[in-house]
Amino acid sequence: MKDCANDFDFCTPTRVLFGKDKINELPKVLGAFGKKVLLVYGGGSIKKNGIYTKIQELLKDFDLFELSGVEPNPRVSSVRAGAKICKEQNIDVVLAVGGGSVLDCSKIICDAAFYDGDAWDLVIDGSKITKALPLVSILTLAATGSEFDCAAVISNPDTNEKIGILNPLNFPKVSILDPSYTLTVNKKHTAAGCADIMSHIFEQYMVDGTNMVSEGLCESILRTVIKFGKIAYDNGSDYTARANLMWASSLACNGICALGSDMAAWVCHAIEHELSAFYDITHGEGLAILTPQVMRYTLSAKTQARYAAFARRVMNVNIEDDNKAALAGIEALEKFFASIGLPKTLKEVGITDELHFKEMAEHACKCFPLHLAFAPLAPSDVEEILRMCK
Amino acid sequence: MKDCANDFDFCTPTRVLFGKDKINELPKVLGAFGKKVLLVYGGGSIKKNGIYTKIQELLKDFDLFELSGVEPNPRVSSVRAGAKICKEQNIDVVLAVGGGSVLDCSKIICDAAFYDGDAWDLVIDGSKITKALPLVSILTLAATGSEFDCAAVISNPDTNEKIGILNPLNFPKVSILDPSYTLTVNKKHTAAGCADIMSHIFEQYMVDGTNMVSEGLCESILRTVIKFGKIAYDNGSDYTARANLMWASSLACNGICALGSDMAAWVCHAIEHELSAFYDITHGEGLAILTPQVMRYTLSAKTQARYAAFARRVMNVNIEDDNKAALAGIEALEKFFASIGLPKTLKEVGITDELHFKEMAEHACKCFPLHLAFAPLAPSDVEEILRMCK
Repeated sequence: MKDCANDFDFCTPTRVLFGKDKINELPKVLGAFGKKVLLVYGGGSIKKNGIYTKIQELLKDFDLFELSGVEPNPRVSSVRAGAKICKEQNIDVVLAVGGGSVLDCSKIICDAAFYDGDAWDLVIDGSKITKALPLVSILTLAATGSEFDCAAVISNPDTNEKIGILNPLNFPKVSILDPSYTLTVNKKHTAAGCADIMSHIFEQYMVDGTNMVSEGLCESILRTVIKFGKIAYDNGSDYTARANLMWASSLACNGICALGSDMAAWVCHAIEHELSAFYDITHGEGLAILTPQVMRYTLSAKTQARYAAFARRVMNVNIEDDNKAALAGIEALEKFFASIGLPKTLKEVGITDELHFKEMAEHACKCFPLHLAFAPLAPSDVEEILRMCK
Repeated sequence: MKDCANDFDFCTPTRVLFGKDKINELPKVLGAFGKKVLLVYGGGSIKKNGIYTKIQELLKDFDLFELSGVEPNPRVSSVRAGAKICKEQNIDVVLAVGGGSVLDCSKIICDAAFYDGDAWDLVIDGSKITKALPLVSILTLAATGSEFDCAAVISNPDTNEKIGILNPLNFPKVSILDPSYTLTVNKKHTAAGCADIMSHIFEQYMVDGTNMVSEGLCESILRTVIKFGKIAYDNGSDYTARANLMWASSLACNGICALGSDMAAWVCHAIEHELSAFYDITHGEGLAILTPQVMRYTLSAKTQARYAAFARRVMNVNIEDDNKAALAGIEALEKFFASIGLPKTLKEVGITDELHFKEMAEHACKCFPLHLAFAPLAPSDVEEILRMCK
């Protein structure tokens, strides 16, 4: 494996307030931006767990407006609705309360508040984003890392498009990370979140050459998720486990884990997008099914040293031969996924045919440059991997 | 050892432009703030290595003012001189070119530009800092991490004080990190820089409980310095080694390595400040002498698990017994320091008496809360450690 020190341009201006009851700082945090607040949230779980009532109490001296019902894959219609409120009410600051979907949607609402045309224009052409309202977030799920990055993924059902954008204007100003809000996340979503965090790391770690500091950070996050993912799965109310997962998730997708390292196409995410699109399965579950099979299919003289390093440093495999160590590492990863109830096969998530595999494989390679992956993939390779997952 | 997930409040808004020739972005970077630039530098090495000429070329369309001669331990007199120029010339942005001293001095110049009284007031009472000029830095030495934090240490010879301040207004807006500027750093300062980076990590790592992600990042930085410190020492012109050291140094003192972990008083820094003050030795060399002896003196049932973890994960010690592993780790650390020419004893840096040890020990415990260290120390302990270093 090659030691790298590639060029980079890095900045994460988001302030993270981490810990129990940090929500109490909300009036001070929001007050710095103004009094008119747009509260954005999803399906209403924040009304059940008390966060909604707490916000109402804390913000009784603010003018509070609301946009609820943001979808799990946030739609541009929600962005439009939010931007409309911002413009009509002269909103000063947007408060996103939820997981990655609510945050992603809110980021583009902040941009669209200053754009006269249709919000979808901003998604397909980021250069149209010139100014954004300040965004403050309260995280309720450890998974995507949207609270500590400037990325957003928005869907447009009219055009069947789902597009990701990166824009430095879209960093939250402040993100409140209170692990106690995730104590009630159920086993299924806790496990899927773990697979998501790990997959973000794999996509940055499985490359030709790595920067030594970044590589160590990647391995540290993987070990953290393996240790505390299991604890949180077994005992959802373990605060230390939830807190470790939460901070791991924020760092995993922020870019800091890849600084100075080589980059390559994100293979598992590309293929999983197709699974989710065609069969509507949970993203993290799809990743857990795909990752070991992608590693197995791509194991070669080129990749085995890297997979072996993962096996030894993360999965505690103690085998000298690289190829054997790599295989043992893949098996250990499968065992870990199984230990937190994640599926191993497509059958387990209800996918029993292979009707769409060819189309999915072609689409994945069209949308993502999988020929530029660590182990380059053609559509026929992707099809074979999908078959291995059956 | 205890797993931690302590509360924290973290933000590093500095943008890092990392890589060879990134200085070419300077006109764009500075132009965002204005045309009147105060260039701050030290003893003039930037005139020998060509950076000064390059800056003149790049900034020919700017109004460039200069403050040179900033001292290795920057004095408040330099801050005053810089602030005077900022006020008289209506400077828009300060450009610091150098190592930690130039950066520290420039940070307070930026604050003092908006303060009517004497600059020293701001050092002894940070609440008087209300506004700061934007600061851009170009780093020429990998050691202190000042380019990626908001800390500064300023000396006042009139009062015999040397005071450190932390203020979020003092983050550089942009730091240009070009490892090629450090290719000519001599062996002595390369080695001292390594000891400084490692010591920043030790002070955050040798604590009661650590956050698992932060702990892994600490270990990764230590391994990076050990590997690339030796390479850079043997072959100063190795770009990859210099680049790895540079990024390690920026992360080591930024606070990110300790997020979620317990904190404790910085023992080796406290004692080394006394050595530097009384005998004017190089900071990194003092740290290299002290660190192994501090570990040896404080090795106990309480500390041995942590020292053993360091030994195994960083120094590749393969011993099961914690106490023996810890001792082997300390020896391995001494061997590493020796391999890059760092001194092992005070004698080697010309300190042969123990005339001031008592006074130094008392002063160290007065200035730093060493009773709150991972292994609490009283003045008599510090005196004994100094004697062990003879």
